[in-house]
Amino acid sequence: MNDIRERMISLTQRTQEAICSAACRVDPAAEFREDRWQRDGGGGGTSRVVQDSAVFDKAGANVSTVHGTLSAQAAASLGGDSSLADRALDFWATGVSTVVHPHNPHAPTAHANFRYFERLEGDEVVAWWFGGGADLTPSYLVEADARHFHRSFATACDAHDPGYYNRFKKWCDEYFVIAHRGEARGVGGIFFDHLTGPEPEPLLRFVEACADAFVPAYFPIVEERYQTPFDDRQKEWQQVRRGRYVEFNLVDDRGTTFGLRTAGRIESVLMSLPLTARWEYGYDVADGSPEAALTEVLRNPVDWI
Amino acid sequence: MNDIRERMISLTQRTQEAICSAACRVDPAAEFREDRWQRDGGGGGTSRVVQDSAVFDKAGANVSTVHGTLSAQAAASLGGDSSLADRALDFWATGVSTVVHPHNPHAPTAHANFRYFERLEGDEVVAWWFGGGADLTPSYLVEADARHFHRSFATACDAHDPGYYNRFKKWCDEYFVIAHRGEARGVGGIFFDHLTGPEPEPLLRFVEACADAFVPAYFPIVEERYQTPFDDRQKEWQQVRRGRYVEFNLVDDRGTTFGLRTAGRIESVLMSLPLTARWEYGYDVADGSPEAALTEVLRNPVDWI
Repeated sequence: MNDIRERMISLTQRTQEAICSAACRVDPAAEFREDRWQRDGGGGGTSRVVQDSAVFDKAGANVSTVHGTLSAQAAASLGGDSSLADRALDFWATGVSTVVHPHNPHAPTAHANFRYFERLEGDEVVAWWFGGGADLTPSYLVEADARHFHRSFATACDAHDPGYYNRFKKWCDEYFVIAHRGEARGVGGIFFDHLTGPEPEPLLRFVEACADAFVPAYFPIVEERYQTPFDDRQKEWQQVRRGRYVEFNLVDDRGTTFGLRTAGRIESVLMSLPLTARWEYGYDVADGSPEAALTEVLRNPVDWI
Repeated sequence: MNDIRERMISLTQRTQEAICSAACRVDPAAEFREDRWQRDGGGGGTSRVVQDSAVFDKAGANVSTVHGTLSAQAAASLGGDSSLADRALDFWATGVSTVVHPHNPHAPTAHANFRYFERLEGDEVVAWWFGGGADLTPSYLVEADARHFHRSFATACDAHDPGYYNRFKKWCDEYFVIAHRGEARGVGGIFFDHLTGPEPEPLLRFVEACADAFVPAYFPIVEERYQTPFDDRQKEWQQVRRGRYVEFNLVDDRGTTFGLRTAGRIESVLMSLPLTARWEYGYDVADGSPEAALTEVLRNPVDWI
């Protein structure tokens, strides 16, 4: 397994680097701040974040490799193999996560996360799995963008298992739901968790393909949209949608709530939140408007391929 | 008990009216929008909200009287008598809740909530209790304001039980904590829940005294501060603090999470969120600054009396 650990660590670093480079190509003046941090219980990570730049309200990519003992409560919240769920076991995990919130309301937000997790009894790996995914969150729906994003990940999936895309697209639609609003966070993508099997090798290659797909799936959309003219009303709608993004992350997202409970580095966990957001009481969208078109798609997920 | 129900409903309406009137005295141009709503499971309420006015980013007061059957899960999240906690029982509840977020960063946010709850088996009331409290959330600490706010509720408490203020002040300090930040939401006030006894009458009178204390405890502070000059940096710090307010309400607040899970009217439940908020990665406050002075008090609650 050590080989898998090392290759997964390399993948997280390569992905972080690729995302920051892609962001800098769109916004050459953007300066990423880099913070290296240590985790009290074991391990650490590196966060790279740019905020309030010409193109990005906030864009960041975190990598971390952490290990230690997981409380039974934290273990239970991980889900997966229920026979292990309530046991306090050692763990080892590495992952990369990224969120990009462009300034322009016509340029969608995107998120991706790829992680590898081991649960250990002494030196023995008693369970291991991969998790991850990527999803797109526009304020204004551009169908071609949603199709391009989905097709990129469908291609990555299809090369490994013809059933993956449909299964992980559906999982994404089910996962990224703001339950109390009855609406999706965005137009989806793929999501998978507890992916395990007889051998890690083919799954690692699948995760590598997904991670490598993110930059070409997303940044051409930003490149295309970041200079689109917009007015105050469109910026306000984006801010309302960013409020919904906050609601999902703080109320529904297992990754965020797990991070907050296990006292990871709070700044890195909450890097995913937008720079600014808005909660306007009784905000209504007009029938037939572009805002209503987005809302319709969030309530009734679409097959983009 | 019917008399208690009726008097509590009157109290919630009188309190809503008093808060909206007080807000209009400070900001005569403020126009409250009123929404009456019905709850699918039984009952309904009225929300009165002003937003983006000269003085208030958002200010609202909700009253509701609701009844129906509570799921075992929702019942468990109520806390209180554990012998009832996991039983799906009928309930009847009425309450008023208010949140005021002024525009000026020197004028603090305030929140108050007073509620009466019955759990029923057929027509029989098997448990009843009062809950409530009020707390103050400044972005910039003005000690005189914190003292005035606390003293107002201490006076209301002392007239009913000499132990109430200390007990409910401490409960407030323990309740309004952003756990993952290790800091309080604000400078506290009072908080109580599951307040029951041999007779509801004296507790109702105590709750009436607290509810009547809110307007004179809070609005003179707004009146005093809403015209204080401020700069962009101070407004930005307020927005960062408003982000923390969102974190508490969506992650930690039992009232909000209960409201979201039981599918109350979402607009009314989330009326408490500020109009706008900010999450700035790696936001630091300078040693010895007014921002650091507030942070210190949030990490180490103060005895204000």
